[in-house]
Amino acid sequence: MSEQTLTDHKLTWAVIGGGNGGQSLSGHLALLGFSVRLYDIFPQTIEAIHSAGGIQVEGAVNGFGKIELATTDIARAIGGADIIMIVAPAIAHRDIALSCAPHLTDGQIIFIHPGATGGALEFNQVLLDQKCDKSITLAEAESLLYACRSQKPGHATIFGIKNELMVAALPATATQRVVKLLNAAFPQMYAGANVLATSLGNANAMMHPAPTLLNTSLIESGNDWLYYWDGITPSIGAFIEALDEERLAVASAFGLKIPGILEWYRIHYGAVGETLSEAVKQNQAYAEVRGQKTLHTRYLLEDIPTGLVPMATLGKLAGVEVSRMETVIKLGEFMTGQDLTTSGRKLEHLGLAGMTIREIREFIETGVRGQIAG
Amino acid sequence: MSEQTLTDHKLTWAVIGGGNGGQSLSGHLALLGFSVRLYDIFPQTIEAIHSAGGIQVEGAVNGFGKIELATTDIARAIGGADIIMIVAPAIAHRDIALSCAPHLTDGQIIFIHPGATGGALEFNQVLLDQKCDKSITLAEAESLLYACRSQKPGHATIFGIKNELMVAALPATATQRVVKLLNAAFPQMYAGANVLATSLGNANAMMHPAPTLLNTSLIESGNDWLYYWDGITPSIGAFIEALDEERLAVASAFGLKIPGILEWYRIHYGAVGETLSEAVKQNQAYAEVRGQKTLHTRYLLEDIPTGLVPMATLGKLAGVEVSRMETVIKLGEFMTGQDLTTSGRKLEHLGLAGMTIREIREFIETGVRGQIAG
Repeated sequence: MSEQTLTDHKLTWAVIGGGNGGQSLSGHLALLGFSVRLYDIFPQTIEAIHSAGGIQVEGAVNGFGKIELATTDIARAIGGADIIMIVAPAIAHRDIALSCAPHLTDGQIIFIHPGATGGALEFNQVLLDQKCDKSITLAEAESLLYACRSQKPGHATIFGIKNELMVAALPATATQRVVKLLNAAFPQMYAGANVLATSLGNANAMMHPAPTLLNTSLIESGNDWLYYWDGITPSIGAFIEALDEERLAVASAFGLKIPGILEWYRIHYGAVGETLSEAVKQNQAYAEVRGQKTLHTRYLLEDIPTGLVPMATLGKLAGVEVSRMETVIKLGEFMTGQDLTTSGRKLEHLGLAGMTIREIREFIETGVRGQIAG
Repeated sequence: MSEQTLTDHKLTWAVIGGGNGGQSLSGHLALLGFSVRLYDIFPQTIEAIHSAGGIQVEGAVNGFGKIELATTDIARAIGGADIIMIVAPAIAHRDIALSCAPHLTDGQIIFIHPGATGGALEFNQVLLDQKCDKSITLAEAESLLYACRSQKPGHATIFGIKNELMVAALPATATQRVVKLLNAAFPQMYAGANVLATSLGNANAMMHPAPTLLNTSLIESGNDWLYYWDGITPSIGAFIEALDEERLAVASAFGLKIPGILEWYRIHYGAVGETLSEAVKQNQAYAEVRGQKTLHTRYLLEDIPTGLVPMATLGKLAGVEVSRMETVIKLGEFMTGQDLTTSGRKLEHLGLAGMTIREIREFIETGVRGQIAG
């Protein structure tokens, strides 16, 4: 276990995850003057950051952010932290929740950044299952605030920062309080309707699995290719737009009006086009986003089980036609040889099994779970 | 209507379809000394062949085959023909059957070359629906005998002739008689167990729709590519092999043991590999088979409704898991925007609705349809 203790304290943040996002956010928070602890599961990452004493950030933000504590001990990372920000692959959220549960204390905020689809709900259910009786507020973001990369531990480049990012708490009655705290560091964050708005706002579920599958031959060609510029061809773009209609219909069934994928590109990137295939080519941020060279990446292995699976599950509960989502899930399972449905976020993992639409809406708004035992 | 009458008669063949296969076969049959009529729906094709008086064939067969009659009048084409050989897109078979029905005479053989999946069964059902009371024998081939191309009407190149080709009649009791007649022209043709063996032997249903969908970005890239050599990547090949297991399981449910796709390549092309992706690269016949540049080709629009749809339908009837077939059908429909299931060959089109597996097996073997009214 490695660590380093520094001074300098306003709010104390524990950042869980030392990848691209976790390091960029940790460095930026430190440069903003916050007290920051950083946890990762990999000792190599932690030791490098401990030795350096912090993270060198460049790009949209520049400077050396001193990290108070870099550790592989999650208890030490989150002990006394005001905000526990989870910046990790969504398929790791369940294990992270299990690791955090025994060490949480009253009043802490857990902010899953991003939560993919159902991040806050899943985390909440793990805490219930673990009989955690502390007063914790859970929140999630619809996406990651940055486009960023960590070339090596201790160094992070922030290519861009989104103009705005939707955040919601569980229950929604806590959202304003959480957003106000987050705004001290990130003024871009604003209150969404509830965690289904952020969860169904997960654009990765639209932009990752289907194009990956429909680009299989390019992925396995061995040639370099650009994920969005080469990969979102007219027919692939049209398929995603139809898939997106299913997502919007699921949201609508839960009383939510959320932006469609074309509108999402306009909001987040100022990228405009008649079709999705055209719009992504207007997004200069995609000019160097290279395509993968294997099917076994998070674009299928994460974005199906923690994106399409919970979306389709919610859709089926609501009687919404989600046959495109189901087709992509199935094909993803066939092409990877993995059961991404069983390992995915289903109603029981989200704590929503046996509930009606009305009960789910009441639960996410108020935290009251109807007749269902918590 | 154009026509030309020549002499020279042994068996009289009516070839229905003046595309690549129809012209190659007509020319070859004429060179073998048979009396040949050629029908096509397109006057331009027929007029060119009529003007030339026949078809110039080159490649595996060389010479000028004189065509007795080239016509757009199907009644004149088939009147008095011994064998009516249908060499046309499978999605046209139903219309061809409707056109032929009023003009058939006792003793004629209708040979669908190839029948895709369910060609003879579908044709038979159209004749029943049309109350055709003539004594007709229906047969189908599992594939097209040639690799061939017609560069322009009146000219055909036969690149290669398969070493062997499975043929079956409906009912199977007629197969030996039909094969003996066909062997006068084509010694490569041999008797399969029954029309489900030929129908489930349809390799196009394996090799066309799934790879096309998984090559969407390459198809729409605008770049030249090789359908098999670039398109059957390791993961795409592995998916086809798993899809093929479903096909073999459907065959097995109907009491048939048919060669798997890897064995099929060994038999037909001498192409051997540990995996399908490797085997196709051993097939020199594929060296110049270019990939399409649009999704809207027969690889989806024909091979799904007349290949995967009837295979999956038979599989579901037999309680066989065909989820890969169903996924490819669904995705094909989404990507083309066409309902390929409704337009496809389902049990009622094949005359098999309401029948048990045992009744179907009895029907295809003996022509006796149990308690079902014909």
